[in-house]
Amino acid sequence: MLIILRETATDAQIDHVVQRVETLGLKAHLSRGTYRTVIGVIGDEEIIASAPLAAIPGVSEVVAVQPAFKLASKTAHPEPSIVSVGKGKTAAKFGGGHIGMIAGPCAIESAERLDEIAGAIKAAGATVLRGGAYKPRTSPYAFQGLGEEGLRILREVGDKHGLPVVTEAIDPRHVELVAEYSDMIQLGARNMQNFVLLTEVGKTDKPVLMKRGMAATVKDLMMSAEYVLSQGNPNVVLCERGVKGFDNACRNMFDVAAVPQVHELSHLPIIVDPSHATGRPELIPACALAGVAAGADGVHIEVHNLPEDAMSDGPQALLPEQYAELAAQIKKVAEAIGKTI
Amino acid sequence: MLIILRETATDAQIDHVVQRVETLGLKAHLSRGTYRTVIGVIGDEEIIASAPLAAIPGVSEVVAVQPAFKLASKTAHPEPSIVSVGKGKTAAKFGGGHIGMIAGPCAIESAERLDEIAGAIKAAGATVLRGGAYKPRTSPYAFQGLGEEGLRILREVGDKHGLPVVTEAIDPRHVELVAEYSDMIQLGARNMQNFVLLTEVGKTDKPVLMKRGMAATVKDLMMSAEYVLSQGNPNVVLCERGVKGFDNACRNMFDVAAVPQVHELSHLPIIVDPSHATGRPELIPACALAGVAAGADGVHIEVHNLPEDAMSDGPQALLPEQYAELAAQIKKVAEAIGKTI
Amino acid sequence: MLIILRETATDAQIDHVVQRVETLGLKAHLSRGTYRTVIGVIGDEEIIASAPLAAIPGVSEVVAVQPAFKLASKTAHPEPSIVSVGKGKTAAKFGGGHIGMIAGPCAIESAERLDEIAGAIKAAGATVLRGGAYKPRTSPYAFQGLGEEGLRILREVGDKHGLPVVTEAIDPRHVELVAEYSDMIQLGARNMQNFVLLTEVGKTDKPVLMKRGMAATVKDLMMSAEYVLSQGNPNVVLCERGVKGFDNACRNMFDVAAVPQVHELSHLPIIVDPSHATGRPELIPACALAGVAAGADGVHIEVHNLPEDAMSDGPQALLPEQYAELAAQIKKVAEAIGKTI
Amino acid sequence: MLIILRETATDAQIDHVVQRVETLGLKAHLSRGTYRTVIGVIGDEEIIASAPLAAIPGVSEVVAVQPAFKLASKTAHPEPSIVSVGKGKTAAKFGGGHIGMIAGPCAIESAERLDEIAGAIKAAGATVLRGGAYKPRTSPYAFQGLGEEGLRILREVGDKHGLPVVTEAIDPRHVELVAEYSDMIQLGARNMQNFVLLTEVGKTDKPVLMKRGMAATVKDLMMSAEYVLSQGNPNVVLCERGVKGFDNACRNMFDVAAVPQVHELSHLPIIVDPSHATGRPELIPACALAGVAAGADGVHIEVHNLPEDAMSDGPQALLPEQYAELAAQIKKVAEAIGKTI
Repeated sequence: MLIILRETATDAQIDHVVQRVETLGLKAHLSRGTYRTVIGVIGDEEIIASAPLAAIPGVSEVVAVQPAFKLASKTAHPEPSIVSVGKGKTAAKFGGGHIGMIAGPCAIESAERLDEIAGAIKAAGATVLRGGAYKPRTSPYAFQGLGEEGLRILREVGDKHGLPVVTEAIDPRHVELVAEYSDMIQLGARNMQNFVLLTEVGKTDKPVLMKRGMAATVKDLMMSAEYVLSQGNPNVVLCERGVKGFDNACRNMFDVAAVPQVHELSHLPIIVDPSHATGRPELIPACALAGVAAGADGVHIEVHNLPEDAMSDGPQALLPEQYAELAAQIKKVAEAIGKTI
Repeated sequence: MLIILRETATDAQIDHVVQRVETLGLKAHLSRGTYRTVIGVIGDEEIIASAPLAAIPGVSEVVAVQPAFKLASKTAHPEPSIVSVGKGKTAAKFGGGHIGMIAGPCAIESAERLDEIAGAIKAAGATVLRGGAYKPRTSPYAFQGLGEEGLRILREVGDKHGLPVVTEAIDPRHVELVAEYSDMIQLGARNMQNFVLLTEVGKTDKPVLMKRGMAATVKDLMMSAEYVLSQGNPNVVLCERGVKGFDNACRNMFDVAAVPQVHELSHLPIIVDPSHATGRPELIPACALAGVAAGADGVHIEVHNLPEDAMSDGPQALLPEQYAELAAQIKKVAEAIGKTI
Repeated sequence: MLIILRETATDAQIDHVVQRVETLGLKAHLSRGTYRTVIGVIGDEEIIASAPLAAIPGVSEVVAVQPAFKLASKTAHPEPSIVSVGKGKTAAKFGGGHIGMIAGPCAIESAERLDEIAGAIKAAGATVLRGGAYKPRTSPYAFQGLGEEGLRILREVGDKHGLPVVTEAIDPRHVELVAEYSDMIQLGARNMQNFVLLTEVGKTDKPVLMKRGMAATVKDLMMSAEYVLSQGNPNVVLCERGVKGFDNACRNMFDVAAVPQVHELSHLPIIVDPSHATGRPELIPACALAGVAAGADGVHIEVHNLPEDAMSDGPQALLPEQYAELAAQIKKVAEAIGKTI
Repeated sequence: MLIILRETATDAQIDHVVQRVETLGLKAHLSRGTYRTVIGVIGDEEIIASAPLAAIPGVSEVVAVQPAFKLASKTAHPEPSIVSVGKGKTAAKFGGGHIGMIAGPCAIESAERLDEIAGAIKAAGATVLRGGAYKPRTSPYAFQGLGEEGLRILREVGDKHGLPVVTEAIDPRHVELVAEYSDMIQLGARNMQNFVLLTEVGKTDKPVLMKRGMAATVKDLMMSAEYVLSQGNPNVVLCERGVKGFDNACRNMFDVAAVPQVHELSHLPIIVDPSHATGRPELIPACALAGVAAGADGVHIEVHNLPEDAMSDGPQALLPEQYAELAAQIKKVAEAIGKTI
């Protein structure tokens, strides 16, 4: 940590800063420049990170030199983590050269419909089936999901087609139930900083699919992963799904540079979700391929067999045949950069 | 709802759109232009809002002409709502010409410290005491609040100084407890779209302070208010506290135009929180005055008597004497636009 | 300047950084922490600012501790600058407690129409008449302004009503012409980083109204002011007119916090333009008052007597009677914070 | 164009809107819904686009159904345009399956250095040499480029290595000179809406490389291309180089989805510039490959043989050997999606 003092800082203020630092059990290393004094702070990183040093009179700025996340960092785990979802020979892998293929409808609507979609995506090469049983909807009047009945359908259909399943948890009181029925628990973008939910999910033994919040920086995403890891659950797969941008031609701004950034900072896998990132089917294939070429460890796509009849997010779903075509292209691009699905 | 078709839409596609609309029990009103056909959709607004019309082949765009919120709209309640917090003669009012003054530390740290701050802000003109017992922190390693012990302290100190109290709920399992100890429940920015929490808070009889999410549009904010209102709780006070912007010189971008926008759309009061919006004490007074001049129904300010020792957000707190000076200026600006505190 | 090295930086790399710094005639001050080495760089600020120190292998980050602008800073000129526009007793003042009131139509359309608008705004309290003769339009097919004929009309109408005039320059080849006809030269938002134009305008002796670019930080705005000042023209009035935001309910995001930020950093006056910031007449009064309460040194408002017939930006214009009402409110808020118009 | 009226619009207002529309020589097609009336406007698109219909009392919103650009649209030119840069067998191609490879230093610093870099990138597979002679710098005190001397060097070095050359024009008075020395004229991001410069460049017969502005939507970019095309110059290559985002870990937010969006809207080629988009060498390869996989018609990379000594943007340059490695990967990904360089 570096404390940069104001140009106008007095000697008394500088002494006071040094004293505060030392009171916290830390060491202060003073360096006087032409215009400003800089104090390097050395010692226990947790104490340093949580002390309100910027509030001390005379301080201009505090510059962190260590990331605030640890378990998620490469220092803790230099090799890329490989996260397995499901068991046995149908388990899907994310990271370390493996690309996981998650697909399925936004919401679970009925056993028949999910069965039909699952059969189609499995044939196209998907490795994990998705579907929401608890839906976070911006309107209180919109379809909120089938709840436990939806979980049951998802489990059955997944088992039938040999596809591990992922579904979203939105309530800390339902996390155990969701963990029981699913192979991977999704944390939605709107809940990326719902720390209560993160903590509950961190206590389960199921891999977690953590979607980036719409206003979250890549470091915010790492900090949220750290919440889950710090509870003892090491299996977190991050997901870039678009952030808020100023061009409303797309639902969100697809930040593909988040993929190499996460790979610089962390051992955790990161996948892309161009369905939510763009919200426009005609842009999804190009963005999916972009993500894979950038090194993404998986691709998450919403697929529906009758989008105009979907109970949630129909307008952004690909048809099964569009998904099959995309999956074939993903395979080629993955091979071009030396990866396998 | 208007459905704008693509230039390339075929007659068969247009017929199919009309048929879908009619299948939903709605009426379609066709209008053929030089380049495009537009279909006006008339009928039950809830059905219209939730149908995935944009997913029908041949459709270019769907334009909503009715807002998706109802109870929060001026149509439902043309006069500005006045929300009272606390009881009897110390109750604070927000809206309809009344400006509520919320102040206090970020986190409740101890009874002694809170008592000292409460005395100072009461003397300066504050009408509601704030303090966090459950803190949503970006790091799992940071101070998470005193929990129920904090609630107890807040209640006692508020009662002693004749100040109603507001504190944040972050867990649906604690909402009842928070409601028991406080006069107003805060929903934090990171939880503005935590619909599970919104629903629980909507079931209590305590007024709600709803902070705008960092990536939320004004309409998103209205929709989240609608969640609370739709549960039967009519007392929602909205709060502009800064949204994500590209200039990292400030913690957030203070969107003061949200104040007149909410007053255009809704009867609900809206206050401003320049502490979180700017994160810089030297900018807080100017932004607080800006909010009041723009018509805000209240001002939320973090105050601490020793910021360099605060357990959370110290660097953005005003000192009690700075708050007193600001409160006096707020009074003058409020009077200039015909309001009272 | 502080150079923060990577954790993995070798001794050879550190030596090389020190050597590069010394080769540039600067001094390096080494400080080794637990995890990282930090090098303070001392010497000629211009050399420091332009050296690509971040490109040296082993360097993690370079932190500037001095602002890159000088003439625009408070260090160069501690007291607020007062900029006078026009001559004699009708001169308008901006800064140092004076609030300048700029108003008029987006484009100059005809002598008759401008005359009518000018009479109305003068009566309402405006102190400067605006009107565009050269219009930067996003479409090549839109009305581009009357050119020199427009300048002539503006001059005549301004003189008739005793109002100094401001108009935009968009072409370096026309700057002299614009300077001849006007009392103040406007630099539009889209040209804030048109450095060629800035340099030409800096060579005139006319005050400059510099609008903030839609993607410019406050520091970028200061740097553009520095361009003008460095050419010898000391009279720059900055203008906050909204930046790009994610909520498209408004044309732009009105960043009122830019006002106190500029006052922290600089002696230059800063005004607000809520017409371009919001693009919605119903929001303009609230945002204008917000700007004044935040300390703005002036208010820029587009006024038109028949918006539905305007040749540019009609939908955001206030009617003369709306402007008169707003000007009266501005006066009250200005007095409440101890200022005069 | 659709005019959506307010719920509160009176019959007199509706009549007045219809009358305004008809006065402009357009036809109005009225459609009354349950809550609102909608008026379809039919007729000359240029008149429709420029009329201030939103300013008419009673109007809530105006929805455009035709894009405001024409020459740049697919309607005008359904097949992808192929833009050739340079002449004869060394000409580089962009679009229609061809990927152009632009590389070189940010600024031209000396003949020797440029010669060395040109040799290296040619060997690696670059097809166009870039280098700035006129540099738009945010600081007036920074290196502004070698001017005409730089143009001469660029021409000579390009000819020697058989590489067509591209360089930026920043002043309308120098466009002819730049056109004389170069094979392609660059319009920088800060000048994307410098309409005076766009018009001058549109009058030349040289292909134009148009960079997207930092606050420009994809439609804004199309409109700026339209400026050039409307002057008679059909050879425009667009370039995504990052837009303003809230995460300052990168210099800009790389909006890879702009690539398929442009391909949806236009026949013009679009390339990517990950150097300016990210500003961080370690992220450039991943983003370059992402752009190619998304369908980009070229890649623009800054390359320098001694970044720590560069006179501009050194910290974001790739070394020649890094560029060679990237170019080989680009080739593989291009082949995977059926393209050639």
